[in-house]
Amino acid sequence: MENPLYIHPMRVAFGDTDASGWMHFPNAFHYVEAAEHAFLRSRGVLVFAREEGGWPRVKVNCEFKRPLLCGDEIEVHLAISRLGGASITWEFEILKSGEIASFGSLTTVRVNQVGEPQIISDEERSALS
Amino acid sequence: MENPLYIHPMRVAFGDTDASGWMHFPNAFHYVEAAEHAFLRSRGVLVFAREEGGWPRVKVNCEFKRPLLCGDEIEVHLAISRLGGASITWEFEILKSGEIASFGSLTTVRVNQVGEPQIISDEERSALS
Amino acid sequence: MENPLYIHPMRVAFGDTDASGWMHFPNAFHYVEAAEHAFLRSRGVLVFAREEGGWPRVKVNCEFKRPLLCGDEIEVHLAISRLGGASITWEFEILKSGEIASFGSLTTVRVNQVGEPQIISDEERSALS
Amino acid sequence: MENPLYIHPMRVAFGDTDASGWMHFPNAFHYVEAAEHAFLRSRGVLVFAREEGGWPRVKVNCEFKRPLLCGDEIEVHLAISRLGGASITWEFEILKSGEIASFGSLTTVRVNQVGEPQIISDEERSALS
Repeated sequence: MENPLYIHPMRVAFGDTDASGWMHFPNAFHYVEAAEHAFLRSRGVLVFAREEGGWPRVKVNCEFKRPLLCGDEIEVHLAISRLGGASITWEFEILKSGEIASFGSLTTVRVNQVGEPQIISDEERSALS
Repeated sequence: MENPLYIHPMRVAFGDTDASGWMHFPNAFHYVEAAEHAFLRSRGVLVFAREEGGWPRVKVNCEFKRPLLCGDEIEVHLAISRLGGASITWEFEILKSGEIASFGSLTTVRVNQVGEPQIISDEERSALS
Repeated sequence: MENPLYIHPMRVAFGDTDASGWMHFPNAFHYVEAAEHAFLRSRGVLVFAREEGGWPRVKVNCEFKRPLLCGDEIEVHLAISRLGGASITWEFEILKSGEIASFGSLTTVRVNQVGEPQIISDEERSALS
Repeated sequence: MENPLYIHPMRVAFGDTDASGWMHFPNAFHYVEAAEHAFLRSRGVLVFAREEGGWPRVKVNCEFKRPLLCGDEIEVHLAISRLGGASITWEFEILKSGEIASFGSLTTVRVNQVGEPQIISDEERSALS
Protein backbone atom coordinates (compact mmCIF):
# COMPACT_ATOMS: atom_id res chain seq x y z
CA MET A 1 0.00 0.00 0.00
CA GLU A 2 1.49 3.30 -1.12
CA ASN A 3 -0.01 5.76 1.30
CA PRO A 4 -1.48 4.17 4.39
CA LEU A 5 -4.14 6.26 6.11
CA TYR A 6 -2.97 4.96 9.45
CA ILE A 7 -0.08 2.92 10.87
CA HIS A 8 -0.57 0.99 14.09
CA PRO A 9 2.45 -0.63 15.78
CA MET A 10 1.85 -3.78 17.83
CA ARG A 11 3.66 -6.77 19.24
CA VAL A 12 2.68 -10.43 18.76
CA ALA A 13 1.76 -11.75 22.21
CA PHE A 14 2.81 -15.21 23.40
CA GLY A 15 -0.87 -16.06 23.77
CA ASP A 16 -1.47 -15.14 20.11
CA THR A 17 0.67 -18.08 18.97
CA ASP A 18 -0.32 -21.73 18.74
CA ALA A 19 1.63 -24.98 19.13
CA SER A 20 3.16 -24.56 15.65
CA GLY A 21 5.05 -21.58 17.09
CA TRP A 22 3.33 -19.24 14.63
CA MET A 23 0.60 -16.67 15.30
CA HIS A 24 -2.77 -18.41 15.31
CA PHE A 25 -4.31 -17.04 12.14
CA PRO A 26 -7.60 -15.47 13.39
CA ASN A 27 -5.50 -13.11 15.52
CA ALA A 28 -4.60 -11.24 12.32
CA PHE A 29 -8.15 -9.90 12.46
CA HIS A 30 -7.68 -8.82 16.08
CA TYR A 31 -4.64 -6.81 15.00
CA VAL A 32 -6.56 -5.19 12.16
CA GLU A 33 -9.46 -4.38 14.45
CA ALA A 34 -7.07 -2.80 16.98
CA ALA A 35 -5.69 -0.61 14.19
CA GLU A 36 -9.13 0.28 12.85
CA HIS A 37 -10.38 1.25 16.31
CA ALA A 38 -7.24 3.28 17.08
CA PHE A 39 -7.77 5.13 13.81
CA LEU A 40 -11.48 5.76 14.50
CA ARG A 41 -10.61 7.10 17.96
CA SER A 42 -7.91 9.33 16.52
CA ARG A 43 -10.57 10.89 14.27
CA GLY A 44 -13.25 11.13 16.94
CA VAL A 45 -15.47 8.57 15.22
CA LEU A 46 -17.61 6.11 17.20
CA VAL A 47 -16.03 2.69 17.80
CA PHE A 48 -18.90 1.08 19.71
CA ALA A 49 -21.51 2.17 22.21
CA ARG A 50 -24.60 0.20 23.11
CA GLU A 51 -26.85 3.25 22.69
CA GLU A 52 -25.28 4.41 19.44
CA GLY A 53 -24.31 1.23 17.59
CA GLY A 54 -21.06 0.30 15.91
CA TRP A 55 -19.48 -1.30 12.87
CA PRO A 56 -20.08 -5.05 12.49
CA ARG A 57 -18.17 -6.82 9.74
CA VAL A 58 -19.98 -8.23 6.72
CA LYS A 59 -17.05 -9.54 4.70
CA VAL A 60 -13.42 -10.24 5.58
CA ASN A 61 -10.46 -11.86 3.89
CA CYS A 62 -6.78 -12.33 4.58
CA GLU A 63 -3.75 -13.88 2.88
CA PHE A 64 -0.81 -15.11 4.91
CA LYS A 65 2.64 -14.76 3.30
CA ARG A 66 5.08 -15.03 6.22
CA PRO A 67 4.59 -16.39 9.73
CA LEU A 68 4.54 -14.12 12.76
CA LEU A 69 6.25 -15.32 15.94
CA CYS A 70 5.95 -14.53 19.66
CA GLY A 71 7.36 -11.09 20.37
CA ASP A 72 7.52 -9.93 16.75
CA GLU A 73 7.13 -6.20 16.35
CA ILE A 74 4.63 -5.54 13.59
CA GLU A 75 2.84 -2.64 11.95
CA VAL A 76 -0.72 -2.69 10.70
CA HIS A 77 -1.15 -0.38 7.70
CA LEU A 78 -4.71 0.69 6.93
CA ALA A 79 -6.42 2.36 4.02
CA ILE A 80 -10.04 2.90 3.03
CA SER A 81 -10.68 1.63 -0.47
CA ARG A 82 -14.40 2.39 -0.50
CA LEU A 83 -16.54 4.65 1.64
CA GLY A 84 -20.12 3.69 0.77
CA GLY A 85 -23.46 4.95 2.00
CA ALA A 86 -23.49 2.80 5.12
CA SER A 87 -20.31 0.77 4.72
CA ILE A 88 -16.54 1.06 4.68
CA THR A 89 -14.10 -1.26 2.93
CA TRP A 90 -10.73 -1.28 4.65
CA GLU A 91 -7.55 -2.61 3.09
CA PHE A 92 -4.85 -3.77 5.46
CA GLU A 93 -1.29 -5.00 5.48
CA ILE A 94 0.53 -6.46 8.47
CA LEU A 95 4.25 -5.78 8.14
CA LYS A 96 7.19 -7.32 9.93
CA SER A 97 10.67 -5.90 9.37
CA GLY A 98 9.23 -3.90 6.49
CA GLU A 99 7.90 -6.95 4.62
CA ILE A 100 4.26 -7.92 4.23
CA ALA A 101 3.36 -10.84 6.47
CA SER A 102 -0.40 -10.73 5.81
CA PHE A 103 -2.81 -8.58 3.86
CA GLY A 104 -6.50 -8.40 3.10
CA SER A 105 -9.63 -6.37 3.50
CA LEU A 106 -12.68 -6.09 5.65
CA THR A 107 -16.01 -4.48 4.97
CA THR A 108 -17.86 -2.98 7.90
CA VAL A 109 -21.37 -1.57 8.08
CA ARG A 110 -22.49 1.29 10.29
CA VAL A 111 -25.38 0.05 12.42
CA ASN A 112 -27.57 1.75 15.01
CA GLN A 113 -28.21 0.57 18.58
CA VAL A 114 -30.48 -2.27 17.42
CA GLY A 115 -28.09 -3.51 14.75
CA GLU A 116 -29.82 -2.00 11.70
CA PRO A 117 -27.69 -0.42 8.95
CA GLN A 118 -27.72 3.34 8.97
CA ILE A 119 -26.21 5.98 6.72
CA ILE A 120 -22.74 7.16 7.67
CA SER A 121 -23.32 10.75 8.78
CA ASP A 122 -21.68 13.71 7.05
CA GLU A 123 -19.74 14.36 10.24
CA GLU A 124 -18.39 10.78 10.32
CA ARG A 125 -17.73 10.90 6.59
CA SER A 126 -15.60 14.01 6.77
CA ALA A 127 -13.76 12.73 9.84
CA LEU A 128 -12.84 9.57 7.96
CA SER A 129 -11.53 11.32 4.85
CA MET B 1 -13.65 -34.23 43.90
CA GLU B 2 -15.73 -37.15 45.13
CA ASN B 3 -19.13 -36.45 43.65
CA PRO B 4 -19.09 -33.92 40.85
CA LEU B 5 -22.40 -32.18 40.28
CA TYR B 6 -21.68 -32.08 36.56
CA ILE B 7 -19.16 -33.53 34.12
CA HIS B 8 -18.48 -31.72 30.86
CA PRO B 9 -16.34 -33.42 28.20
CA MET B 10 -14.32 -31.19 25.86
CA ARG B 11 -11.35 -31.30 23.55
CA VAL B 12 -8.35 -28.94 23.64
CA ALA B 13 -8.43 -26.97 20.37
CA PHE B 14 -5.28 -26.23 18.37
CA GLY B 15 -6.01 -22.54 18.85
CA ASP B 16 -6.07 -23.02 22.64
CA THR B 17 -2.36 -23.86 22.67
CA ASP B 18 0.58 -21.48 22.52
CA ALA B 19 4.11 -21.74 21.10
CA SER B 20 5.23 -23.88 24.05
CA GLY B 21 2.91 -26.57 22.70
CA TRP B 22 0.82 -26.48 25.88
CA MET B 23 -2.67 -25.04 26.41
CA HIS B 24 -2.39 -21.29 26.99
CA PHE B 25 -3.34 -21.04 30.65
CA PRO B 26 -6.30 -18.57 30.58
CA ASN B 27 -8.18 -21.09 28.42
CA ALA B 28 -8.65 -23.23 31.54
CA PHE B 29 -11.21 -20.62 32.57
CA HIS B 30 -12.95 -20.87 29.20
CA TYR B 31 -13.31 -24.62 29.76
CA VAL B 32 -14.72 -24.10 33.24
CA GLU B 33 -17.14 -21.48 31.95
CA ALA B 34 -18.31 -23.84 29.20
CA ALA B 35 -19.00 -26.48 31.85
CA GLU B 36 -20.74 -24.02 34.19
CA HIS B 37 -22.97 -22.74 31.39
CA ALA B 38 -23.81 -26.25 30.19
CA PHE B 39 -24.79 -27.14 33.74
CA LEU B 40 -26.93 -24.00 34.17
CA ARG B 41 -28.70 -24.73 30.89
CA SER B 42 -29.29 -28.34 31.94
CA ARG B 43 -31.08 -27.03 35.02
CA GLY B 44 -33.00 -24.31 33.24
CA VAL B 45 -31.11 -21.52 35.02
CA LEU B 46 -30.25 -18.25 33.29
CA VAL B 47 -26.78 -18.08 31.70
CA PHE B 48 -26.94 -14.52 30.40
CA ALA B 49 -29.55 -12.23 28.89
CA ARG B 50 -29.18 -8.50 28.50
CA GLU B 51 -32.63 -7.88 30.02
CA GLU B 52 -32.21 -10.32 32.90
CA GLY B 53 -28.55 -10.16 33.85
CA GLY B 54 -26.05 -12.93 34.44
CA TRP B 55 -23.22 -14.17 36.64
CA PRO B 56 -20.02 -12.09 36.51
CA ARG B 57 -16.98 -13.51 38.32
CA VAL B 58 -15.63 -11.81 41.42
CA LYS B 59 -12.82 -14.21 42.33
CA VAL B 60 -11.08 -16.99 40.43
CA ASN B 61 -8.08 -19.21 40.97
CA CYS B 62 -6.47 -22.17 39.27
CA GLU B 63 -3.49 -24.48 39.82
CA PHE B 64 -1.84 -26.23 36.91
CA LYS B 65 -0.43 -29.71 37.59
CA ARG B 66 -0.06 -31.25 34.13
CA PRO B 67 0.06 -29.64 30.70
CA LEU B 68 -2.79 -30.04 28.21
CA LEU B 69 -1.92 -30.52 24.54
CA CYS B 70 -3.71 -29.94 21.23
CA GLY B 71 -6.42 -32.53 20.76
CA ASP B 72 -6.44 -33.80 24.34
CA GLU B 73 -9.81 -35.11 25.46
CA ILE B 74 -10.59 -33.64 28.84
CA GLU B 75 -13.41 -33.57 31.37
CA VAL B 76 -14.37 -30.60 33.49
CA HIS B 77 -15.78 -31.72 36.84
CA LEU B 78 -17.88 -29.15 38.71
CA ALA B 79 -19.24 -28.85 42.21
CA ILE B 80 -20.81 -26.02 44.19
CA SER B 81 -18.98 -25.51 47.48
CA ARG B 82 -21.07 -22.54 48.61
CA LEU B 83 -24.45 -21.24 47.53
CA GLY B 84 -24.70 -17.80 49.12
CA GLY B 85 -27.41 -15.16 49.06
CA ALA B 86 -26.32 -13.66 45.74
CA SER B 87 -23.21 -15.71 44.94
CA ILE B 88 -22.04 -19.20 44.03
CA THR B 89 -18.61 -20.66 44.64
CA TRP B 90 -17.78 -23.37 42.14
CA GLU B 91 -15.00 -25.88 42.55
CA PHE B 92 -13.58 -27.38 39.38
CA GLU B 93 -11.14 -30.00 38.21
CA ILE B 94 -9.96 -30.48 34.64
CA LEU B 95 -9.09 -34.13 34.09
CA LYS B 96 -7.09 -35.78 31.35
CA SER B 97 -6.90 -39.58 31.20
CA GLY B 98 -8.46 -39.65 34.64
CA GLU B 99 -5.75 -37.49 36.26
CA ILE B 100 -6.15 -33.91 37.43
CA ALA B 101 -4.47 -31.48 35.05
CA SER B 102 -5.82 -28.29 36.69
CA PHE B 103 -8.13 -27.40 39.53
CA GLY B 104 -9.45 -24.35 41.27
CA SER B 105 -12.54 -22.37 42.07
CA LEU B 106 -14.51 -19.41 40.87
CA THR B 107 -17.02 -17.24 42.68
CA THR B 108 -19.82 -15.73 40.64
CA VAL B 109 -22.44 -13.19 41.63
CA ARG B 110 -25.97 -13.03 40.31
CA VAL B 111 -26.53 -9.56 38.83
CA ASN B 112 -29.54 -7.92 37.25
CA GLN B 113 -29.68 -6.22 33.84
CA VAL B 114 -27.70 -3.20 35.07
CA GLY B 115 -25.00 -5.24 36.75
CA GLU B 116 -26.19 -4.88 40.35
CA PRO B 117 -26.07 -7.91 42.67
CA GLN B 118 -29.44 -9.52 43.30
CA ILE B 119 -30.61 -12.36 45.50
CA ILE B 120 -30.61 -15.78 43.87
CA SER B 121 -34.31 -16.61 43.60
CA ASP B 122 -35.86 -19.62 45.30
CA GLU B 123 -36.55 -21.06 41.87
CA GLU B 124 -32.90 -20.73 40.83
CA ARG B 125 -31.76 -22.00 44.20
CA SER B 126 -33.76 -25.18 44.00
CA ALA B 127 -32.77 -25.74 40.38
CA LEU B 128 -29.09 -25.55 41.39
CA SER B 129 -29.35 -28.00 44.28
CA MET C 1 -23.82 -26.36 0.10
CA GLU C 2 -25.62 -29.38 -1.30
CA ASN C 3 -23.64 -32.26 0.12
CA PRO C 4 -21.42 -31.32 3.03
CA LEU C 5 -18.51 -33.68 3.58
CA TYR C 6 -18.79 -33.12 7.30
CA ILE C 7 -21.21 -31.50 9.76
CA HIS C 8 -19.91 -30.27 13.10
CA PRO C 9 -22.42 -29.11 15.76
CA MET C 10 -21.24 -26.46 18.22
CA ARG C 11 -22.59 -23.88 20.62
CA VAL C 12 -21.65 -20.19 20.69
CA ALA C 13 -19.91 -19.59 24.02
CA PHE C 14 -20.56 -16.49 26.13
CA GLY C 15 -16.87 -15.65 25.78
CA ASP C 16 -17.19 -15.75 21.97
CA THR C 17 -19.46 -12.70 22.02
CA ASP C 18 -18.48 -9.05 22.33
CA ALA C 19 -20.17 -6.01 23.83
CA SER C 20 -22.52 -5.73 20.82
CA GLY C 21 -24.07 -8.98 22.00
CA TRP C 22 -23.05 -10.72 18.77
CA MET C 23 -20.32 -13.31 18.21
CA HIS C 24 -17.00 -11.51 17.79
CA PHE C 25 -16.28 -12.14 14.13
CA PRO C 26 -12.84 -13.85 14.21
CA ASN C 27 -14.44 -16.67 16.22
CA ALA C 28 -16.12 -17.84 13.02
CA PHE C 29 -12.66 -19.10 12.02
CA HIS C 30 -12.29 -20.91 15.34
CA TYR C 31 -15.54 -22.74 14.63
CA VAL C 32 -14.41 -23.67 11.12
CA GLU C 33 -11.07 -24.88 12.45
CA ALA C 34 -12.82 -27.00 15.09
CA ALA C 35 -14.90 -28.59 12.31
CA GLU C 36 -11.89 -29.10 10.03
CA HIS C 37 -9.89 -30.73 12.81
CA ALA C 38 -12.78 -32.96 13.86
CA PHE C 39 -13.11 -34.09 10.24
CA LEU C 40 -9.35 -34.74 9.89
CA ARG C 41 -9.39 -36.81 13.11
CA SER C 42 -12.43 -38.75 11.90
CA ARG C 43 -10.43 -39.74 8.82
CA GLY C 44 -7.19 -40.47 10.66
CA VAL C 45 -5.38 -37.54 9.02
CA LEU C 46 -2.78 -35.50 10.91
CA VAL C 47 -4.08 -32.32 12.57
CA PHE C 48 -0.78 -31.08 14.02
CA ALA C 49 2.32 -32.62 15.54
CA ARG C 50 5.59 -30.79 16.10
CA GLU C 51 7.60 -33.63 14.50
CA GLU C 52 5.24 -34.12 11.55
CA GLY C 53 3.95 -30.65 10.71
CA GLY C 54 0.42 -29.47 10.06
CA TRP C 55 -1.80 -27.31 7.91
CA PRO C 56 -1.22 -23.54 8.19
CA ARG C 57 -3.70 -21.28 6.41
CA VAL C 58 -2.61 -19.23 3.42
CA LYS C 59 -5.91 -17.59 2.48
CA VAL C 60 -9.19 -17.19 4.32
CA ASN C 61 -12.43 -15.34 3.77
CA CYS C 62 -15.83 -15.11 5.37
CA GLU C 63 -19.12 -13.31 4.83
CA PHE C 64 -21.46 -12.61 7.71
CA LYS C 65 -25.21 -12.71 6.93
CA ARG C 66 -26.85 -13.11 10.34
CA PRO C 67 -25.52 -12.51 13.84
CA LEU C 68 -24.80 -15.36 16.23
CA LEU C 69 -25.67 -14.91 19.89
CA CYS C 70 -24.52 -16.44 23.17
CA GLY C 71 -25.79 -19.99 23.48
CA ASP C 72 -26.86 -20.38 19.84
CA GLU C 73 -26.66 -23.92 18.59
CA ILE C 74 -24.91 -23.93 15.25
CA GLU C 75 -23.65 -26.36 12.65
CA VAL C 76 -20.49 -25.96 10.63
CA HIS C 77 -20.86 -27.58 7.20
CA LEU C 78 -17.61 -28.37 5.39
CA ALA C 79 -16.69 -29.36 1.86
CA ILE C 80 -13.42 -29.57 -0.04
CA SER C 81 -13.61 -27.57 -3.26
CA ARG C 82 -10.02 -28.22 -4.32
CA LEU C 83 -7.49 -30.85 -3.28
CA GLY C 84 -4.20 -29.61 -4.75
CA GLY C 85 -0.69 -31.03 -4.65
CA ALA C 86 0.14 -29.58 -1.25
CA SER C 87 -3.00 -27.59 -0.44
CA ILE C 88 -6.68 -27.96 0.35
CA THR C 89 -9.40 -25.39 -0.24
CA TRP C 90 -12.27 -25.83 2.19
CA GLU C 91 -15.70 -24.28 1.76
CA PHE C 92 -17.71 -23.70 4.89
CA GLU C 93 -21.13 -22.59 6.03
CA ILE C 94 -22.13 -21.84 9.59
CA LEU C 95 -25.84 -22.54 10.03
CA LYS C 96 -28.24 -21.50 12.75
CA SER C 97 -31.79 -22.84 12.76
CA GLY C 98 -31.13 -24.16 9.26
CA GLU C 99 -30.20 -20.76 7.82
CA ILE C 100 -26.74 -19.63 6.77
CA ALA C 101 -25.25 -17.20 9.29
CA SER C 102 -21.76 -17.10 7.74
CA PHE C 103 -19.94 -18.72 4.87
CA GLY C 104 -16.55 -18.64 3.24
CA SER C 105 -13.47 -20.64 2.43
CA LEU C 106 -10.00 -21.29 3.70
CA THR C 107 -6.97 -22.64 1.91
CA THR C 108 -4.52 -24.67 3.94
CA VAL C 109 -1.10 -25.99 2.97
CA ARG C 110 0.44 -29.22 4.21
CA VAL C 111 3.79 -28.37 5.79
CA ASN C 112 6.48 -30.53 7.36
CA GLN C 113 7.99 -30.11 10.85
CA VAL C 114 10.00 -27.03 9.79
CA GLY C 115 7.05 -25.34 8.08
CA GLU C 116 7.97 -26.12 4.46
CA PRO C 117 5.22 -27.14 2.05
CA GLN C 118 5.14 -30.83 1.27
CA ILE C 119 3.07 -32.97 -1.07
CA ILE C 120 -0.12 -34.40 0.42
CA SER C 121 0.62 -38.15 0.57
CA ASP C 122 -1.47 -40.72 -1.30
CA GLU C 123 -2.60 -42.06 2.06
CA GLU C 124 -3.80 -38.62 3.21
CA ARG C 125 -5.34 -37.96 -0.20
CA SER C 126 -7.44 -41.11 -0.16
CA ALA C 127 -8.44 -40.54 3.47
CA LEU C 128 -9.71 -37.06 2.56
CA SER C 129 -11.79 -38.18 -0.44
CA MET D 1 0.80 -1.78 45.64
CA GLU D 2 3.17 0.86 46.93
CA ASN D 3 6.09 0.59 44.57
CA PRO D 4 5.33 -1.29 41.39
CA LEU D 5 8.37 -2.81 39.69
CA TYR D 6 6.79 -2.15 36.31
CA ILE D 7 3.79 -0.27 34.89
CA HIS D 8 2.31 -1.38 31.59
CA PRO D 9 -0.36 0.79 29.93
CA MET D 10 -2.93 -0.94 27.72
CA ARG D 11 -6.38 -0.44 26.26
CA VAL D 12 -9.33 -2.84 26.56
CA ALA D 13 -10.08 -4.08 23.05
CA PHE D 14 -13.64 -4.45 21.75
CA GLY D 15 -12.91 -8.15 21.24
CA ASP D 16 -11.93 -8.48 24.91
CA THR D 17 -15.50 -7.75 26.00
CA ASP D 18 -18.45 -10.13 26.07
CA ALA D 19 -22.20 -9.66 25.62
CA SER D 20 -22.53 -8.21 29.13
CA GLY D 21 -20.53 -5.24 27.86
CA TRP D 22 -17.75 -5.97 30.36
CA MET D 23 -14.28 -7.38 29.73
CA HIS D 24 -14.51 -11.17 29.56
CA PHE D 25 -12.72 -12.15 32.76
CA PRO D 26 -9.93 -14.47 31.47
CA ASN D 27 -8.55 -11.52 29.49
CA ALA D 28 -7.29 -10.07 32.78
CA PHE D 29 -4.62 -12.77 32.60
CA HIS D 30 -3.74 -11.76 29.04
CA TYR D 31 -3.15 -8.21 30.27
CA VAL D 32 -0.98 -9.42 33.13
CA GLU D 33 1.00 -11.65 30.78
CA ALA D 34 1.54 -8.73 28.40
CA ALA D 35 2.92 -6.69 31.30
CA GLU D 36 5.10 -9.55 32.59
CA HIS D 37 6.56 -10.15 29.13
CA ALA D 38 7.17 -6.44 28.52
CA PHE D 39 9.02 -6.29 31.86
CA LEU D 40 11.10 -9.40 31.10
CA ARG D 41 12.06 -7.95 27.71
CA SER D 42 12.97 -4.62 29.32
CA ARG D 43 15.41 -6.51 31.55
CA GLY D 44 16.80 -8.76 28.82
CA VAL D 45 15.30 -11.89 30.39
CA LEU D 46 13.97 -14.76 28.25
CA VAL D 47 10.23 -14.68 27.56
CA PHE D 48 9.97 -17.88 25.52
CA ALA D 49 12.08 -19.73 23.00
CA ARG D 50 11.53 -23.31 21.95
CA GLU D 51 15.24 -24.15 22.43
CA GLU D 52 15.56 -22.37 25.77
CA GLY D 53 12.23 -22.84 27.51
CA GLY D 54 10.04 -20.31 29.24
CA TRP D 55 7.84 -19.63 32.25
CA PRO D 56 4.64 -21.72 32.46
CA ARG D 57 2.19 -20.78 35.20
CA VAL D 58 1.55 -23.13 38.10
CA LYS D 59 -0.89 -21.05 40.14
CA VAL D 60 -2.97 -17.99 39.34
CA ASN D 61 -5.70 -16.00 41.03
CA CYS D 62 -7.61 -12.80 40.41
CA GLU D 63 -10.29 -10.74 42.12
CA PHE D 64 -12.56 -8.44 40.12
CA LYS D 65 -13.67 -5.23 41.83
CA ARG D 66 -14.82 -3.00 38.98
CA PRO D 67 -15.79 -3.86 35.40
CA LEU D 68 -13.61 -2.87 32.44
CA LEU D 69 -15.32 -1.65 29.28
CA CYS D 70 -14.39 -1.47 25.59
CA GLY D 71 -11.79 1.23 25.05
CA ASP D 72 -10.88 1.71 28.71
CA GLU D 73 -7.32 2.84 29.24
CA ILE D 74 -5.78 0.72 31.94
CA GLU D 75 -2.45 0.20 33.67
CA VAL D 76 -1.08 -3.12 34.83
CA HIS D 77 1.13 -2.70 37.92
CA LEU D 78 3.54 -5.56 38.63
CA ALA D 79 5.69 -6.55 41.57
CA ILE D 80 7.60 -9.69 42.48
CA SER D 81 6.61 -10.93 45.93
CA ARG D 82 8.81 -14.02 45.88
CA LEU D 83 11.81 -14.98 43.78
CA GLY D 84 12.34 -18.67 44.52
CA GLY D 85 14.90 -21.16 43.26
CA ALA D 86 13.02 -21.94 40.06
CA SER D 87 9.86 -19.87 40.46
CA ILE D 88 8.59 -16.31 40.61
CA THR D 89 5.44 -15.09 42.31
CA TRP D 90 4.10 -11.95 40.69
CA GLU D 91 1.56 -9.63 42.26
CA PHE D 92 -0.54 -7.55 39.91
CA GLU D 93 -3.10 -4.79 39.94
CA ILE D 94 -5.10 -3.60 36.95
CA LEU D 95 -5.99 0.05 37.39
CA LYS D 96 -8.55 2.20 35.62
CA SER D 97 -8.68 5.93 36.30
CA GLY D 98 -6.34 5.32 39.22
CA GLU D 99 -8.62 2.80 40.93
CA ILE D 100 -8.05 -0.94 41.21
CA ALA D 101 -10.31 -2.86 38.85
CA SER D 102 -8.69 -6.27 39.41
CA PHE D 103 -5.79 -7.69 41.36
CA GLY D 104 -4.17 -11.02 42.05
CA SER D 105 -1.03 -13.04 41.66
CA LEU D 106 0.53 -15.63 39.43
CA THR D 107 3.33 -18.06 40.11
CA THR D 108 5.51 -19.03 37.19
CA VAL D 109 8.24 -21.65 36.97
CA ARG D 110 11.35 -21.45 34.85
CA VAL D 111 11.45 -24.50 32.60
CA ASN D 112 13.96 -25.71 30.03
CA GLN D 113 13.22 -26.64 26.42
CA VAL D 114 11.52 -29.90 27.40
CA GLY D 115 9.37 -28.31 30.07
CA GLU D 116 11.36 -29.41 33.13
CA PRO D 117 11.87 -26.93 36.00
CA GLN D 118 15.33 -25.42 36.12
CA ILE D 119 17.08 -23.08 38.52
CA ILE D 120 16.78 -19.39 37.69
CA SER D 121 20.32 -18.42 36.72
CA ASP D 122 22.31 -15.79 38.60
CA GLU D 123 22.20 -13.65 35.49
CA GLU D 124 18.40 -13.85 35.31
CA ARG D 125 18.13 -13.34 39.05
CA SER D 126 20.12 -10.13 39.06
CA ALA D 127 18.29 -8.85 35.96
CA LEU D 128 14.97 -9.36 37.76
CA SER D 129 15.97 -7.56 40.96
